[in-house]
Amino acid sequence: MTPDAITEAPPASAPSAFMGRLGHEPVADIVELLNTKSLDEATEVIAAMPLRWAVEVLDQPQFHDASDVIAALPQDKAVPLLEGMSADRVADVLRWIDEEPRARLRAGLSAETRASIDRLMSYPEGTAGALMTTEFVSVPSSWTIQQTLDHIRRVERSRETIYAIYVLDPASRRLVNTVTLRRLISGASDAPILSVAQPYAPITVPPSLPQEEVARTISKYDFLSVPVVDSTGHVIGIVTVDDVIDAMIEEQSEDVQRMGGMEAIDEPYFRVSFLEMIKKRGGWLAVLFLSEMLTASAMQAYADELEKAIVLALFIPLVMSSGGNSGSQATSLIIRSLALGEVKLADWWRVALRELPTGMALGAILGLIGVLRITIWQTAGIFDYGEHWKLLAVTIGAALVGIVTFGSMAGSLLPFALKRLGFDPAAASAPFIATLVDVTGIIIYFSVAWLFLRGTLL
Amino acid sequence: MTPDAITEAPPASAPSAFMGRLGHEPVADIVELLNTKSLDEATEVIAAMPLRWAVEVLDQPQFHDASDVIAALPQDKAVPLLEGMSADRVADVLRWIDEEPRARLRAGLSAETRASIDRLMSYPEGTAGALMTTEFVSVPSSWTIQQTLDHIRRVERSRETIYAIYVLDPASRRLVNTVTLRRLISGASDAPILSVAQPYAPITVPPSLPQEEVARTISKYDFLSVPVVDSTGHVIGIVTVDDVIDAMIEEQSEDVQRMGGMEAIDEPYFRVSFLEMIKKRGGWLAVLFLSEMLTASAMQAYADELEKAIVLALFIPLVMSSGGNSGSQATSLIIRSLALGEVKLADWWRVALRELPTGMALGAILGLIGVLRITIWQTAGIFDYGEHWKLLAVTIGAALVGIVTFGSMAGSLLPFALKRLGFDPAAASAPFIATLVDVTGIIIYFSVAWLFLRGTLL
Repeated sequence: MTPDAITEAPPASAPSAFMGRLGHEPVADIVELLNTKSLDEATEVIAAMPLRWAVEVLDQPQFHDASDVIAALPQDKAVPLLEGMSADRVADVLRWIDEEPRARLRAGLSAETRASIDRLMSYPEGTAGALMTTEFVSVPSSWTIQQTLDHIRRVERSRETIYAIYVLDPASRRLVNTVTLRRLISGASDAPILSVAQPYAPITVPPSLPQEEVARTISKYDFLSVPVVDSTGHVIGIVTVDDVIDAMIEEQSEDVQRMGGMEAIDEPYFRVSFLEMIKKRGGWLAVLFLSEMLTASAMQAYADELEKAIVLALFIPLVMSSGGNSGSQATSLIIRSLALGEVKLADWWRVALRELPTGMALGAILGLIGVLRITIWQTAGIFDYGEHWKLLAVTIGAALVGIVTFGSMAGSLLPFALKRLGFDPAAASAPFIATLVDVTGIIIYFSVAWLFLRGTLL
Repeated sequence: MTPDAITEAPPASAPSAFMGRLGHEPVADIVELLNTKSLDEATEVIAAMPLRWAVEVLDQPQFHDASDVIAALPQDKAVPLLEGMSADRVADVLRWIDEEPRARLRAGLSAETRASIDRLMSYPEGTAGALMTTEFVSVPSSWTIQQTLDHIRRVERSRETIYAIYVLDPASRRLVNTVTLRRLISGASDAPILSVAQPYAPITVPPSLPQEEVARTISKYDFLSVPVVDSTGHVIGIVTVDDVIDAMIEEQSEDVQRMGGMEAIDEPYFRVSFLEMIKKRGGWLAVLFLSEMLTASAMQAYADELEKAIVLALFIPLVMSSGGNSGSQATSLIIRSLALGEVKLADWWRVALRELPTGMALGAILGLIGVLRITIWQTAGIFDYGEHWKLLAVTIGAALVGIVTFGSMAGSLLPFALKRLGFDPAAASAPFIATLVDVTGIIIYFSVAWLFLRGTLL
């Protein structure tokens, strides 16, 4: 049965309809159905569920209303749920609850849970520390394989993953090595645990590592989880592959939206209110508009030239859009290469050396098409560009070479500049480059025109 | 130790330098170093490595030169390597080798391997069938937990993952259920395997499912692997979470590049030849240029109006870029919502009903800023827009409302149209929308101008 077939079950309207499905369907499908309900209905359903199932539902990051449901539940219902949930998820859920109810909920937690949550919440969003969970399996390096297996069987239910076991120094409790469950069950029962450890130092990440780099580490080494180790060498948590996938999907959405020139929206399209939508889109749109006003200022500076050669105005949209297109190509190429680590910050001059001839070649191609267009239209009598149409054609062609070269250079170098200044290249490049190339494009265009048409049209 | 610290080991120049690192470093780091070598050097190193290590290196999808190395090795070296590699990786590697050497290599494989590879290669790229591997653990439903564990210990080395065990009907060999290793090791040895199976029908995917949907299934259910089941109910392979991550990263790069208006490049920036780069970027740039020529045609149609009111030309770049920006916002928002399944194809009219007021509100905001700009510049004496500057301001404001509304509507509906026609919305939306909004923008602008300025400026 495909997942889609499962989700097409008839909709349930009351808590009782949900109860019958618990344990007979994957929890992800129950969450999917709950997501279609109102907050009141979802709260009612969660309140009526047996604790074990309610915890499973709330543990799913796909459940949109988790924070609101927890906040809406009475304290004696909410606290046991939080105690049962995985620590990283509790930290995520609490992050979105208002300060007052959050303090009340936090006060209800056991001292141990509270300490875990406080530590997790102290790391900035988007870092390994914020993504990690504290529920992992660790054993002293003095244990045998059998001791470790017995321990895993005992604690299995309360751990996020048991597929990686972290072996600690019995005295200092520092991380010595990592053992995978698959190697563990292949070893002899009485052999020491370290006999099945990997033959090299464990790969770890610091809590401050950005989540994209955590994802890159997990993907590079094909890990199911990676330990987060503090500066003293102690494992403070692990990041699991499913958290990384969720983070990657979220990141991907944000990148696409930012490249489209808007603030990132982390809720589904139809759940964003009208005002929220206007705010997220209108803000950037207004910033872009204000910057693009520079094009009007640039044009005003050339008002006299325009007056003399109105034919120049006809090609402004064409020439400007070519600059924008070549800039956005180069920007998206470099943003991606930087994100994947294929290109490093120090490579900026190698990129520049490459984009200069690339931009000139691309500009020459477009310039040639432009010259052909004017020649064909003029000689076929489709439009009359005036007696100096040959000079006009040369102007358009030369301007395209200049503008496309500038667009490619600026587009490829801007992500480096933004990254160097500590900004996310994906966040700001597209809008910046559009404005930069448009304004400069107008200046290049009229400068080239002045060069070729001075004394004739101008 | 962080991964970065590891990769900064001194570069090795001869095969012998690599040999000393085998087994002492993660294979991913050895691959990273090999990637910096020339094809000849890489081939020499692989040829000199013990078979087991060469197989591990070639099994890494991050190793760029795998296909070329295999093609360059003598047949008696290459065939044992292919036999040792995982079947899905062999299929990937062979896909990129020329027909003649590929046929020679294929002929050298054992009948069993050849059959696996042929089947994997028969699925189109980007589907579950092409992504899956045939090396998974399956046991009959009549076995006990102990029998299953013994079996897993025997076959562990040759399986891509052992964390999900597929339980088959002993007679028909159809998939009955899935058992995770963590549940398995928690069960009693003599209990039947099905006693630790999940309590619902297994989630599976058909071989034709696009890889994004495979990724969505794995991410939704937090799986480490998902079984690929054919129409007869037999498991023909599994897709593992690390293959999904690799596919997601690749997909993400392609989307970013396509949204930037170029053909997808799957090699690192500095490995793409100059000519290849011109081809991948120049093609789309030329197509966009040819479409944008329509803007010149549209402008030519309004040449008379321009002649009369040259002041109109000053705002063309500003007004056009606002249309383009609002269009690209709406497009990227909907592309992403469609990709995540938050919005379905049938929702197009709900989106349209939402974007109409959103576009009008956004247009009104920009229009207001535009009117303010002209008023301030005129009254402060920065620029003289002529005696009819109030009418001009109204024209710009009204045109912005029209163009931003059109941009939002067109931008949000185009992905639906492209998806309906069987295209990838991410592939074509950005370039299409730019042209569409630019050309229509000019027409809207001059129509509004004609409406407000007829009898005065026009």
